[in-house]
Amino acid sequence: MSIANPYLMFLGDAPDQLAAKTADGVAKWRPDWCLGQLRLEGCQADIGLPDMSLEEAAEAGVKTLIVGVANQGGFLPDNWVSSLDKALDLGMDIASGLHMRLTELPGIAEKAERLGRSLYDARHPTRDFATGKGRPRTGKRLLTVGTDVSVGKMFTSLSIEKEMKARGMKVDFRATGQTGIFIAGDGVSVDAVVADFISGASEWLSPDNGDDHWDIVEGQGSLFHAAYAGVTLGLLHGSQPDAIVLCHEPTRPHMRGTPDIPMPDLQAVIDANIAAGRLTNPNIRCIGVSVNTSALSDEAANKLLQEIESRLGLPSVDAFRHGAARLVDALG
Amino acid sequence: MSIANPYLMFLGDAPDQLAAKTADGVAKWRPDWCLGQLRLEGCQADIGLPDMSLEEAAEAGVKTLIVGVANQGGFLPDNWVSSLDKALDLGMDIASGLHMRLTELPGIAEKAERLGRSLYDARHPTRDFATGKGRPRTGKRLLTVGTDVSVGKMFTSLSIEKEMKARGMKVDFRATGQTGIFIAGDGVSVDAVVADFISGASEWLSPDNGDDHWDIVEGQGSLFHAAYAGVTLGLLHGSQPDAIVLCHEPTRPHMRGTPDIPMPDLQAVIDANIAAGRLTNPNIRCIGVSVNTSALSDEAANKLLQEIESRLGLPSVDAFRHGAARLVDALG
Repeated sequence: MSIANPYLMFLGDAPDQLAAKTADGVAKWRPDWCLGQLRLEGCQADIGLPDMSLEEAAEAGVKTLIVGVANQGGFLPDNWVSSLDKALDLGMDIASGLHMRLTELPGIAEKAERLGRSLYDARHPTRDFATGKGRPRTGKRLLTVGTDVSVGKMFTSLSIEKEMKARGMKVDFRATGQTGIFIAGDGVSVDAVVADFISGASEWLSPDNGDDHWDIVEGQGSLFHAAYAGVTLGLLHGSQPDAIVLCHEPTRPHMRGTPDIPMPDLQAVIDANIAAGRLTNPNIRCIGVSVNTSALSDEAANKLLQEIESRLGLPSVDAFRHGAARLVDALG
Repeated sequence: MSIANPYLMFLGDAPDQLAAKTADGVAKWRPDWCLGQLRLEGCQADIGLPDMSLEEAAEAGVKTLIVGVANQGGFLPDNWVSSLDKALDLGMDIASGLHMRLTELPGIAEKAERLGRSLYDARHPTRDFATGKGRPRTGKRLLTVGTDVSVGKMFTSLSIEKEMKARGMKVDFRATGQTGIFIAGDGVSVDAVVADFISGASEWLSPDNGDDHWDIVEGQGSLFHAAYAGVTLGLLHGSQPDAIVLCHEPTRPHMRGTPDIPMPDLQAVIDANIAAGRLTNPNIRCIGVSVNTSALSDEAANKLLQEIESRLGLPSVDAFRHGAARLVDALG
């Protein structure tokens, strides 16, 4: 089951722009799929799409309402639920990135069932997976890996996909988190599967494919993150990447969420991923580095990228700021 | 919530001895807790305990009926359910290692609720966990790690606990799988938690403790298993062991369940665990090797152990065959 587009982006009464970060990412990377935004009274977010009512969206051909906004306190306010209910009546499916499952909202679940609409909870696996088999698959794969969580692995993956598409290459972006899933229209939140199935779910995500086809797999976590390294390792094994790109954010004082643990050395992260990745793909290699330099000036960003490039001997770019051309060149 | 003992071991109509492997392990390691076995008509297993009816067990003071047997086809036959039902009536709690949850058996769940009895599904986490913090905890920890799955990590852990207890040391066995949970009376099936919480659950499992206290943590999987390495890594990070013991089974033709992947070199497994374990405990060291030599003659076992000991420069024993004294000595 994949999410049907085009989308209407539901922003609810988001208290600030950050609360609509997911919707913003989807609108940025899939502008053609996002026909409008629905903002309720008091909404403080704006992702730059035309404001639309549910009726206008239905008229415009929207197939899915995307709840791409964080709610407060983990419960859904009545005015959100009534919007979801009406969207079903108007013929839309609903996809949500909330922790709370749509399928746990009795009125919504019942109505969707009755009307034959789909509910898609992007944070929660909607399939069963087999355990990993470790068997080589056909086709080529690139996985973004990171020094830490939230360092730009999804953005780098999407920049690489965009560059490959522009070159006419055969490529699919494979999503492993909620925003990515709305962008790809499908995928699996690997951090939400039962631990035994991390690598099996990752194998499912990038199946056998043509010899000239690339899957660009969105990385998660970091082998050096004390909370999430298990997810990262299972994703690495299951993805069996031919190529990895190291993603990094240069202004972190320590690993995010674990103040006792310092940021790792970049070369150490590459080495650890290569060593572990060899288990399922002996030819794995690191082809470049993508640094999120959004906190730096142009000058400081360029200086840092040059320093990293000369130290590691790998093309080092900010894939979002400068595009991913040099990374795709390095695959050649 | 921990499982109250003493236990009655329910073997159902197990078709062979192997189907009662869990019950057998519990009876072996906790003979004082296991007052008897309950075998239904046609049961082909016998774990050497006195046969008892439910009434006799209640009379003898049994607090928990342990369903330590694999069932066929994933459903519970009526004669099993009626035994569970009667156990509740007679005042017992029930703990199960079945895939199917006791809490999903409507009649059983309702009756337990009504009578105030506890149901414990050892394969399924019954708590919520926080994500890992990576913060150093007080007390000492030893984790068994393996070249592969099912190489004797639980047996080695229990042998070490037994030896430490015999020496009057302060020690707890910390269980991470269903059999271990019945043996410890508590624990968490780390392979069944949601992937994001592997290391957090492992941190919960071995909390702060006295400086002279050892937690002996039952390992799971292997960093070199393409399906389960994520679980293994999260458990390693969350356990933050001061010491690891490498467990090995010498007759495997390849990694269990993944015929494309060969068994790893023993030194490589030690190195990978030490390198990854340093993230949360810089002082981690490997103190010995435990080889499951049950498939070998005495002579062949001794020869192999000597060869491994001289090659790796570490005490190498079969902890089950010879006890764990040399491993505990090595903690010194």
